Amino acid sequence: MASSLFKYSFTTRLHDIDAAGVVFFARIFYYAHDAYETFLNHHQQSIEKILQADFILPVSHTEADFKAPIFLNEEITIEIFFQNVKDNEFTLNYHFLDQSGRLKATALTQHVCLDSSTRTRKALPDSIRSLLF
Amino acid sequence: MASSLFKYSFTTRLHDIDAAGVVFFARIFYYAHDAYETFLNHHQQSIEKILQADFILPVSHTEADFKAPIFLNEEITIEIFFQNVKDNEFTLNYHFLDQSGRLKATALTQHVCLDSSTRTRKALPDSIRSLLF
Amino acid sequence: MASSLFKYSFTTRLHDIDAAGVVFFARIFYYAHDAYETFLNHHQQSIEKILQADFILPVSHTEADFKAPIFLNEEITIEIFFQNVKDNEFTLNYHFLDQSGRLKATALTQHVCLDSSTRTRKALPDSIRSLLF
Amino acid sequence: MASSLFKYSFTTRLHDIDAAGVVFFARIFYYAHDAYETFLNHHQQSIEKILQADFILPVSHTEADFKAPIFLNEEITIEIFFQNVKDNEFTLNYHFLDQSGRLKATALTQHVCLDSSTRTRKALPDSIRSLLF
Repeated sequence: MASSLFKYSFTTRLHDIDAAGVVFFARIFYYAHDAYETFLNHHQQSIEKILQADFILPVSHTEADFKAPIFLNEEITIEIFFQNVKDNEFTLNYHFLDQSGRLKATALTQHVCLDSSTRTRKALPDSIRSLLF
Repeated sequence: MASSLFKYSFTTRLHDIDAAGVVFFARIFYYAHDAYETFLNHHQQSIEKILQADFILPVSHTEADFKAPIFLNEEITIEIFFQNVKDNEFTLNYHFLDQSGRLKATALTQHVCLDSSTRTRKALPDSIRSLLF
Repeated sequence: MASSLFKYSFTTRLHDIDAAGVVFFARIFYYAHDAYETFLNHHQQSIEKILQADFILPVSHTEADFKAPIFLNEEITIEIFFQNVKDNEFTLNYHFLDQSGRLKATALTQHVCLDSSTRTRKALPDSIRSLLF
Repeated sequence: MASSLFKYSFTTRLHDIDAAGVVFFARIFYYAHDAYETFLNHHQQSIEKILQADFILPVSHTEADFKAPIFLNEEITIEIFFQNVKDNEFTLNYHFLDQSGRLKATALTQHVCLDSSTRTRKALPDSIRSLLF
């Protein structure tokens, strides 16, 4: 398998856990996006710089698969993988691993590149494209 | 198309909106689950009754597609549709419609039926199966 | 006691509950703000209309007291009370009651009126002042 | 002023920002609790160990004061200060500082020590008391 673009670790908190005693399923997408923002920061392409530019990268499609429950105060590492890039969209994969390397969940975010004013598709700028390979 | 199992309406709040000025993509799954819980309540199969029973229904897979941004203080109606049911899992679809009937997003949650103690698959109880058609 | 300005009801959800099995303490402020936004909507002074105007009403101070735990799938009614108003600030109180009328929690939000551009204090507009008594 | 018990840093994320373009006021309490949980972990008194013991430490009262808005992708350091301890309760203060040392917000959480089964007050165990000075 290709090597990951980035690794990001976090610890699950009291408020991440739901009434069933495990991380609420939808939290996975918050963690994934936190990893994505940290990845952008790492490459001096911060999310607030993007929001001030003439393009936006909204999520057009997303998925997650849950393989094992994630519990309170677990340290999880997300590995971000590049899946594919087209002229005006790209897809990232996220692997959620516990500290023994067990895969707890996977997620995917597909981002489209839109013009900030018109919200129509435009070509992905090189500043972003160059981060993905 | 088949008629929906249930309709649920909500209004987007200040804290649902992110720094890009639209509903944060992962919020869609919170809304979908709120609709699902309200659907269960409507049929006297509340989520806390399920948590006290000998089975659990965790989400094993989920997806969403975003067609148009959802803004602050929008009233959105979720229609829940039955997609399929197997012996020990079922899938629901969620359509997010604005007040003019425009489809803003869709989501899907696949739930597996597990034994509460062993977390191994078991047959979906009739109390849940009977809600889905 | 003075009569309430507004009543707002909600049901606690799976994701509102934390690993201790009760509503996470900080959720109380989300519910309070949801009640406040619904109150504004009820009087045609929606939060997005305010955000487009020349003033903002950020929270400058907030408090909450927790009297009894709030559990999963509880229906709670928030009663909003006016506490005081000054030239450029106002304070609201929120009472969280269960369906038997038991007071579960109270919260308070103090809002200051700032000029949108300069973020300096300005007099509360009559459109807001008139809602408070 | 007394030295802080603990320092915890975090970066604000896209989803922390609300429709007004700043961190939603109630998020401050999530950050404060994240800092508190990290402080407990640091002293091998993790939140999940506490949840398995015969006492709980729910928040009975909380407050926050907002001095300046916190923006997207800001790195904030929370300093936790001990305020006071009684036989069966304690209070912590949280200072939110930006990277230039400017105080953006303060928060306070008062925790009571309750018996896990009866939810009546009991003396704070030494394992917790010893962390506070």
